[in-house]
Amino acid sequence: MSPGRFITLEGGEGAGKSTQARALAAALEARGLHVLVTREPGGSDGAEAIRELLMQGDVGRWSPHAETLLFAAARADHVEKRIRPAIGAGHWVICDRYVDSTRAYQGAQGIDDAAILALHGFGSRGLMPDRTFLLELPPEEGAARAAGRGAAANDRFEMRGTGFHAAVAEGFARIAAAEPDRVRRIDAAAAPEQVTAALIEALADLLP
Amino acid sequence: MSPGRFITLEGGEGAGKSTQARALAAALEARGLHVLVTREPGGSDGAEAIRELLMQGDVGRWSPHAETLLFAAARADHVEKRIRPAIGAGHWVICDRYVDSTRAYQGAQGIDDAAILALHGFGSRGLMPDRTFLLELPPEEGAARAAGRGAAANDRFEMRGTGFHAAVAEGFARIAAAEPDRVRRIDAAAAPEQVTAALIEALADLLP
Repeated sequence: MSPGRFITLEGGEGAGKSTQARALAAALEARGLHVLVTREPGGSDGAEAIRELLMQGDVGRWSPHAETLLFAAARADHVEKRIRPAIGAGHWVICDRYVDSTRAYQGAQGIDDAAILALHGFGSRGLMPDRTFLLELPPEEGAARAAGRGAAANDRFEMRGTGFHAAVAEGFARIAAAEPDRVRRIDAAAAPEQVTAALIEALADLLP
Repeated sequence: MSPGRFITLEGGEGAGKSTQARALAAALEARGLHVLVTREPGGSDGAEAIRELLMQGDVGRWSPHAETLLFAAARADHVEKRIRPAIGAGHWVICDRYVDSTRAYQGAQGIDDAAILALHGFGSRGLMPDRTFLLELPPEEGAARAAGRGAAANDRFEMRGTGFHAAVAEGFARIAAAEPDRVRRIDAAAAPEQVTAALIEALADLLP
């Protein structure tokens, strides 16, 4: 049995993460691999229930600290109930957002990166992906794509303000710079098929 | 304005914590103090929503680590939205269970005490009570009182087993031994009025 692998897709809103998760899964399945596509927050029964708490209500419903703890709790459940068992069975797991999103989004609200990693160590025994793709778009392109997703998604995006989204993008870029082997920056403004091809190419060293 | 105070009641199931919280509040109000009675998990809108997640479903629904993170998230919301504002306004806050319950119950499931205190430091800036009352009952008396509370409460109590409840009681006793000034052990097998009188007596140094 070839070893299970854990791949995550990260980036701002509208970067095409869920589209690319599905396209990458199809490409891997065509090579005979068994693939689980999942997402955060959520991905397990308990984590989906926590996701509802995180998504309901005003943007400011939770303090950044309470929110960070809820993300860590959801991730702990998801990792234990779905991600680790799938990797253990030799499957490939593709996850739409993971701990780097907490680092970028909650980091942009002033939460210390070391504290976020300590919570991840506590809740999920620090499980990190084998590879992470950071899908990058120019900020105005991300805003335009969010606007095309309907009023609710756009309101939520705009409520945060452009300064916030710029801070999130900087947070992601900082992680990629610090961990260049794990995190690969991908130009998400290209055509979807081209993006998928770039992902496959950047997985060559992990493929059986 | 006399300073606000933060008092917590701790102990196993059936020790009379909520009854004593109300009786103590009445006694303090009779002295002209403004009192907020609250409880955990819960006590604020967000924390009550997290409480529902914690109380629903099987005893084993959440891993001990995920559960500990959920308790810390609920406490962070409760402390920020209700406890700190009340103390800041010069009120007395009486809370039925707080971080010592997490230390005793999650500690009995193998979670490290230092990790629980680190989560408390992150979520709630480590807010500790001015005084904590540990209401202690002989184990068989606690079991009998739990049985008198109806089938659901009793099932939940019995599912944990006597070894678990003994470990919880030991955890509470360890905290009381380590922090004798903050934590006072109270004989909860006495008549309710006697217990309330003991609480008031043990608050003498904090009363205005």
